[in-house]
Amino acid sequence: MKNTFGIALTLTIFGESHGEYIGAVLDGLAPGIKIDREYINARLAERRPSGKISTARVEADEYIIASGEFEGYTTGAPLTVLIPNTNKKSKDYSTLKTTPRPSHADYTAECKYHGFQDYRGGGHFSGRITAALVAAGAILRSALISKGIKIGSHIVELHGASDRRFEDYERDIDSLLGKSFPTLTDSAEENMRREAEKAAAMGDSVGGILETAIIGVPAGVGEPWFDTLESMLAHALFSVPAVKGVEFGAGFAFADMYGSEANDPFTIKDGGVVTVTNNNGGINGGITNGMPILLSTVIKPTPSIFKEQATVDLTEGKNTVLKLEGRHDPCIIHRARAVVDAMCAIVIADMLTARFGTDYLASGDKK
Amino acid sequence: MKNTFGIALTLTIFGESHGEYIGAVLDGLAPGIKIDREYINARLAERRPSGKISTARVEADEYIIASGEFEGYTTGAPLTVLIPNTNKKSKDYSTLKTTPRPSHADYTAECKYHGFQDYRGGGHFSGRITAALVAAGAILRSALISKGIKIGSHIVELHGASDRRFEDYERDIDSLLGKSFPTLTDSAEENMRREAEKAAAMGDSVGGILETAIIGVPAGVGEPWFDTLESMLAHALFSVPAVKGVEFGAGFAFADMYGSEANDPFTIKDGGVVTVTNNNGGINGGITNGMPILLSTVIKPTPSIFKEQATVDLTEGKNTVLKLEGRHDPCIIHRARAVVDAMCAIVIADMLTARFGTDYLASGDKK
Amino acid sequence: MKNTFGIALTLTIFGESHGEYIGAVLDGLAPGIKIDREYINARLAERRPSGKISTARVEADEYIIASGEFEGYTTGAPLTVLIPNTNKKSKDYSTLKTTPRPSHADYTAECKYHGFQDYRGGGHFSGRITAALVAAGAILRSALISKGIKIGSHIVELHGASDRRFEDYERDIDSLLGKSFPTLTDSAEENMRREAEKAAAMGDSVGGILETAIIGVPAGVGEPWFDTLESMLAHALFSVPAVKGVEFGAGFAFADMYGSEANDPFTIKDGGVVTVTNNNGGINGGITNGMPILLSTVIKPTPSIFKEQATVDLTEGKNTVLKLEGRHDPCIIHRARAVVDAMCAIVIADMLTARFGTDYLASGDKK
Amino acid sequence: MKNTFGIALTLTIFGESHGEYIGAVLDGLAPGIKIDREYINARLAERRPSGKISTARVEADEYIIASGEFEGYTTGAPLTVLIPNTNKKSKDYSTLKTTPRPSHADYTAECKYHGFQDYRGGGHFSGRITAALVAAGAILRSALISKGIKIGSHIVELHGASDRRFEDYERDIDSLLGKSFPTLTDSAEENMRREAEKAAAMGDSVGGILETAIIGVPAGVGEPWFDTLESMLAHALFSVPAVKGVEFGAGFAFADMYGSEANDPFTIKDGGVVTVTNNNGGINGGITNGMPILLSTVIKPTPSIFKEQATVDLTEGKNTVLKLEGRHDPCIIHRARAVVDAMCAIVIADMLTARFGTDYLASGDKK
Repeated sequence: MKNTFGIALTLTIFGESHGEYIGAVLDGLAPGIKIDREYINARLAERRPSGKISTARVEADEYIIASGEFEGYTTGAPLTVLIPNTNKKSKDYSTLKTTPRPSHADYTAECKYHGFQDYRGGGHFSGRITAALVAAGAILRSALISKGIKIGSHIVELHGASDRRFEDYERDIDSLLGKSFPTLTDSAEENMRREAEKAAAMGDSVGGILETAIIGVPAGVGEPWFDTLESMLAHALFSVPAVKGVEFGAGFAFADMYGSEANDPFTIKDGGVVTVTNNNGGINGGITNGMPILLSTVIKPTPSIFKEQATVDLTEGKNTVLKLEGRHDPCIIHRARAVVDAMCAIVIADMLTARFGTDYLASGDKK
Repeated sequence: MKNTFGIALTLTIFGESHGEYIGAVLDGLAPGIKIDREYINARLAERRPSGKISTARVEADEYIIASGEFEGYTTGAPLTVLIPNTNKKSKDYSTLKTTPRPSHADYTAECKYHGFQDYRGGGHFSGRITAALVAAGAILRSALISKGIKIGSHIVELHGASDRRFEDYERDIDSLLGKSFPTLTDSAEENMRREAEKAAAMGDSVGGILETAIIGVPAGVGEPWFDTLESMLAHALFSVPAVKGVEFGAGFAFADMYGSEANDPFTIKDGGVVTVTNNNGGINGGITNGMPILLSTVIKPTPSIFKEQATVDLTEGKNTVLKLEGRHDPCIIHRARAVVDAMCAIVIADMLTARFGTDYLASGDKK
Repeated sequence: MKNTFGIALTLTIFGESHGEYIGAVLDGLAPGIKIDREYINARLAERRPSGKISTARVEADEYIIASGEFEGYTTGAPLTVLIPNTNKKSKDYSTLKTTPRPSHADYTAECKYHGFQDYRGGGHFSGRITAALVAAGAILRSALISKGIKIGSHIVELHGASDRRFEDYERDIDSLLGKSFPTLTDSAEENMRREAEKAAAMGDSVGGILETAIIGVPAGVGEPWFDTLESMLAHALFSVPAVKGVEFGAGFAFADMYGSEANDPFTIKDGGVVTVTNNNGGINGGITNGMPILLSTVIKPTPSIFKEQATVDLTEGKNTVLKLEGRHDPCIIHRARAVVDAMCAIVIADMLTARFGTDYLASGDKK
Repeated sequence: MKNTFGIALTLTIFGESHGEYIGAVLDGLAPGIKIDREYINARLAERRPSGKISTARVEADEYIIASGEFEGYTTGAPLTVLIPNTNKKSKDYSTLKTTPRPSHADYTAECKYHGFQDYRGGGHFSGRITAALVAAGAILRSALISKGIKIGSHIVELHGASDRRFEDYERDIDSLLGKSFPTLTDSAEENMRREAEKAAAMGDSVGGILETAIIGVPAGVGEPWFDTLESMLAHALFSVPAVKGVEFGAGFAFADMYGSEANDPFTIKDGGVVTVTNNNGGINGGITNGMPILLSTVIKPTPSIFKEQATVDLTEGKNTVLKLEGRHDPCIIHRARAVVDAMCAIVIADMLTARFGTDYLASGDKK
């Protein structure tokens, strides 16, 4: 379904980096979800570029809720977030149409859209259009919080520097809120920033790995085929620009474990069933078991670097070199975190709506 | 959409390990695809248990094409593969309903289906139901071959033992056809089998990583949002039982690379655009660039092991231990390969049909 | 989605008139719906040909529930109904491929499937494949009954003969159960049968109009756009072979009414809101208002008649005449009623599941 | 999928009568469709209120193409049409929340949205939001014209007054372009306007029937199950406010015909296969046969009338009367015609895209 995703609660996105508006439509929302603008603004702030390791293009991300809100609550009709594109400098990008950036979408866009794509600033492939998505996700995240469900992501690895894993889930998740460079430890932030700045200084870029925890999702959510919770989360995450891998729980480390090490034994705790370990990241057979959902997402280094690169001239059909100018992020993983959190919120909200009906996420307030 | 997956070409699966039939329905097929029973049988053989590292339950996988075939070709109406369940021993499983196997779907099935699930042999969660899917995928794989598209997977890692990566794609892919334990080198097979047999002897199990290559897909296939080719492949693969991670190209290794190392420079070769390296696994911005599509899938160790495990008694709400008997695979990765190949074929065939129309995969034969 | 329909609860159908099996897969079912074989058999009997106005091809419609049932209840996994095709006489149909029956699907199938379609007995276009659908619908209808929801259809018009409209809904609906020629009055049946027999005697055929009532659906079900309850019902009904029109409430008669006549005034009755009249057929703005849902479906005369007809020879590209032999129904509306009832059940069950969650239709029995 | 509709080419709509914006997103568009603003404006003009038989609320329908257009062509990314709501008078509507208008969506909205709906001016149920849809449809209609496909609708019946049926399809369709009250004959317009004005003078309203013809669609488009062309068109049309019936070809008149009268004989004309009559409205077995597609849509009288009506007070749970003031259309069928044309364009464009691939509707211009 291309630019629409979800089963019971769907997200449609639109927009291009240098078009009039970028936007997102949430459909299938429960009526009566409270809209918390402060919370939305805080999530947008987490996505905004900041400091030496980000693009110089800073936009206010002033958004309009163009539909679906009335007197501070969702109406149940589609909720639309619009963000105008204000800080556009089209002239920076004019050569990218014929000399595609290696590993960016310039060339594949040309193959798919036959030259009609809006190539300015990456067009529809730009990370820019994730801003509306983050605002939409924030509305769902605050609804989820009222159901006891929290989501948080931190950078667990960045070019050799690493952070500790989640331990005390709720406290760790809460500690990440509002951080512009999300790590669980200060030393990790320091080491990672140093790596990113080093790359920036060389005109190069870095990627990294985000570790995400989602707590409070009840057991029994997800499907065995094909809409396993892992499938739905991965589908959403792999559409985020630069994501090249997703794993749940122990993930690729399972390859070197025995079953007896990998299995999470069940035990009774406070009258309920829990697992002693959580190698499976809270999901068995595609369905939640009530434990924290754990996943990792790898973000590749941003392809727009300032170093000279070999590429081709598509018009002349011959080899050439590309030396980028303009505004590009040497590091986006700290900003991508806001997008990953938003996508997770959308998937979890969707799966809960499909499971428990369209009123499930309502705030419980009366009218 | 739960047990139906795909955009233009959809796969619906049904069945339980100990029910009457398992089956798969392919809908949206081009009319005029030749049905090659020998090729289907060969793919089913790759999925069948064999030797010391597999379950003792061997079934003939006799399938019926119940609809959608006429005079040796697809009709364009839904094609249904049915496989009767013949070798059922229900008594082995009777305790699993109350004492769930750690990290299997027994407990989450109970949470979702409230006791009504067919718990015998894993029911709808059983790897058994992938047999119909492999047959369905084989029909598409032979259609893809006629378009110059080939798919192959090998075990690249298994409990410390490893195989070399793909090099000469077409030859490597061809060399894997028909192997019951797919590796690119004999020494890898030997080392991996030894690891698996060691685990089996201990009553334990192993997992591993499959590396998959898909060659011949034209540039320009996939969507920027949300149905990137990576999203669609990951969605399909994460519904295969035991898959816990999927990565494309360099995948998680991107975390420690610079952009200048990660980017794949373009160059002109034989008049066409290719990339010098292929760290991005043939996909930029969610869309194919014409290079081989490369992905890796991690399979966790099978959770059904013979070692004693801590679990709970759901009826009494207290801790207990579980000692499995019966027939269980200590290693399934060599069998899972047939399923991964089939899922990839289904996704590629779907994306091509969506892109180029419903007649695209027809054989070109006349009637 | 072609042969799959539904939002939360989906129906997939497959099969051809002369293939191995016809079948239907229901996915998204609540676990714990009781399977009542007697009720299913009774609904299948309503669809079976009988008497002078039906085809001579009578099949037992012996069905297998191939998956999704365990110990008499739905499991929550896909439920598959299979019906083998036993009474096949392929030789009757061999000329239809080149000389298409006027207003049947022979010609359009040729245009779409380029000669690969299974043309025997109408193939995938045959009314035959509605048998599995009726069985699937019956499972949902008995689940709906346990929620107080009943569905019934009668022939309200047939070549000039007419029946009275629904009056006492529940009693009228109940009176139709099990009738092989469903009318609310005996005189209507007599007059309609006479018309149908007259057509049959001439080698001709008749159609007619079915009026359907659905009672007990709570207010608030359906969507304003695009999945209005009318849209979903019409989508389903227009896929039933021979349906050429669907209207709700006063339907086409609205064209000659004033708003003041057409509007249904609200009033309080037994503490609840009801309407005094029901011209809108229980739906306003695409959403149920709690009143009976009323709709009419027109069935065109069966195109397979024994009279000589002008057609073309597709091979030679010239005009010719067609004189059918073999087994054809001169009247199918009494049989189509079982299909219309089933499709309505599927849509209502789907919309309730989407609205109230995937456990809504469970029987409430414990396990 | 609620506010998103379509298979390969989808339409998402959003907005409420008194919100910030109404809008529509077209996704799955071919790149390279020329955007003809003059043509779009002409279609919007056909939907705008005019004269004595329309609401006094006139809006300029100034639209913005917020995404998906670049240098005068579609980019292939989602195309978004935004229309600001400028002429809002909220105070007119304040009592409708507690005293619902008979046969409007006020009551069902309350049942579904529990009081959180934006009840001003009908909110998301308002005919207002069809404006964006008409603009989106216009883009597709001009693309279809370049493929030789034309769509036109006229009022064939309005409270006893009637127009002739389509005869010379192309000339008739062309004659309707730009008419604010679309009929094929001047006398029909005169008679119908008189009926509508009479109703308006009484504070009442009228409905009517639109007859639509679609010419130039190639044979072989549509599916046997469930996405017959009739199903898809009906699904789309039944979501248009006030539509209560849809029929194809002879429609409900089939009920009184014999098969020998109803069937459309085939004949060879100019080397191609055509039918002599067109009772089936160009569709057999759900698939186009190449003849003009003919359908009729009944529009009920607008429920907002100025006559006093019986209703209920939802707050107090007792009977009351409602006397509307403000701005309401006594007749909308001439305006609904623009919406019906647009929905048909969207469905035909979607089915062609699904059939022939995502580049099919491109203009053929080069870049």
